[in-house]
Amino acid sequence: MPSFIDKLKQKWNEGKFVCVGLDTDYDKLPQSVKTSSKKESILNFNKAIIDATNDLVCAFKPNTAFYEAAGAEGIAALEETNKYIAQKYPDISIILDAKRADIGSTNDGYVKAAFETLNSDAVTLHPYLGKEALSPFLARSDKGVIILVRTSNPGSDEIQSLEMNGKPLYLLIAENVAKNWNANGNCAVVVGATYPEELKKVREIVGDIPILIPGIGAQGGDLEASVKNGINSQKQGIIISSSRSIIYADDPRKATEDLHNQITEILKNV
Amino acid sequence: MPSFIDKLKQKWNEGKFVCVGLDTDYDKLPQSVKTSSKKESILNFNKAIIDATNDLVCAFKPNTAFYEAAGAEGIAALEETNKYIAQKYPDISIILDAKRADIGSTNDGYVKAAFETLNSDAVTLHPYLGKEALSPFLARSDKGVIILVRTSNPGSDEIQSLEMNGKPLYLLIAENVAKNWNANGNCAVVVGATYPEELKKVREIVGDIPILIPGIGAQGGDLEASVKNGINSQKQGIIISSSRSIIYADDPRKATEDLHNQITEILKNV
Repeated sequence: MPSFIDKLKQKWNEGKFVCVGLDTDYDKLPQSVKTSSKKESILNFNKAIIDATNDLVCAFKPNTAFYEAAGAEGIAALEETNKYIAQKYPDISIILDAKRADIGSTNDGYVKAAFETLNSDAVTLHPYLGKEALSPFLARSDKGVIILVRTSNPGSDEIQSLEMNGKPLYLLIAENVAKNWNANGNCAVVVGATYPEELKKVREIVGDIPILIPGIGAQGGDLEASVKNGINSQKQGIIISSSRSIIYADDPRKATEDLHNQITEILKNV
Repeated sequence: MPSFIDKLKQKWNEGKFVCVGLDTDYDKLPQSVKTSSKKESILNFNKAIIDATNDLVCAFKPNTAFYEAAGAEGIAALEETNKYIAQKYPDISIILDAKRADIGSTNDGYVKAAFETLNSDAVTLHPYLGKEALSPFLARSDKGVIILVRTSNPGSDEIQSLEMNGKPLYLLIAENVAKNWNANGNCAVVVGATYPEELKKVREIVGDIPILIPGIGAQGGDLEASVKNGINSQKQGIIISSSRSIIYADDPRKATEDLHNQITEILKNV
């Protein structure tokens, strides 16, 4: 099995940087896809998105919040969705956007949930408990460990921009990840497309480490600045994620294609 | 329905401060409780613990990691466990130890999962995205919003003790919670029993806000120092949590009773 990083690099070499966020909210599904089973409804909706967009993307990113809101049936739908991607499109990465992190021994449970039960290639994590707590994730050199550095929400400065010796917390965390957490070469970081200046600073610190960039689309992130400020020395290294504005579009393939083409154009001019 | 804070205060007035952590790992269950159904095995194990300890505790605290590791069946067991507590012992709080936090619109899904689907009275959350992102939780004045301030793991200093103007990050977060996040009077904080000195400093900052104190038992936290440094001006305000050393004890009731009695003794002398 190729590692998360290897799978990403293959897609980047094919010029694919889009990640479709499978933020599937049962309550928002069109009546036409709803059956008597919540699980089946969510799964069918996801399969249609996956089948329509797979040749344009580097990754799919289900966010656990939407599945958990639908209870055990939602989790079953998530399991089946990831199994479907892993079997039918094994070269595309599954990023579980779970934003987890607990103490070390408890993280064993999340590692099992993310990588075994849910078949994911990578998972997003909070940095607050430090490297020692995250070691069960970091030890998995085949899997991606994606650390929240600068999140896309309007209020992310409250904690993330607190300054220590003139340096904001989010940059200190980026430094720790790059220098100390990435011994297995499996780390990536999250920086929201809503903060392109901060993205530039993070890229300077983390070298060629992949950056997951959410916030394109409904959240209003700046695509051009994000691509330009996010790319690494190989003009790659970015995972540009869009969720609501793709999955709820009238034509999800067209929405994905538009985003893909825009990125391709921007990259021609850098 | 009484609020989380009201339920806690009632139990504190009865002299009950113990929280039993339902960290139920399917792989660690004794052969004798295992049936052909994972869900049933986990649920039966939990019911036995709950029935044996309910008159001694202020709260039960299932940690989602252990249930997620068992997949959709694990989540179903968690749903049933919480329903069992809510129906049979409605005066005891259910703290969902989920350590979640995402951007605002996504947190709506976690709010629904924690408080509706899973029937919880309170949930633990990461502070990294700030108050704005957590507003869907903070708006629920009937529910407890328990923010990680100083976690019990050995490496929690890496990020949590980074200093800004001579003040560590965990104290700055405690300040923000007490001064700015607690407008609905529904906040609490987490400080590990493995850091009794830090607990003292947090108590000085947060006033009478409840403190959830994990790390007693298997993690080796200091009970006496935790009780003495953790109590508020009413000699209450603490939730002393123990998980593995109760649920896997030969006699879970006796283990709970021992902890309860020790706390009672310590409180007599403060």
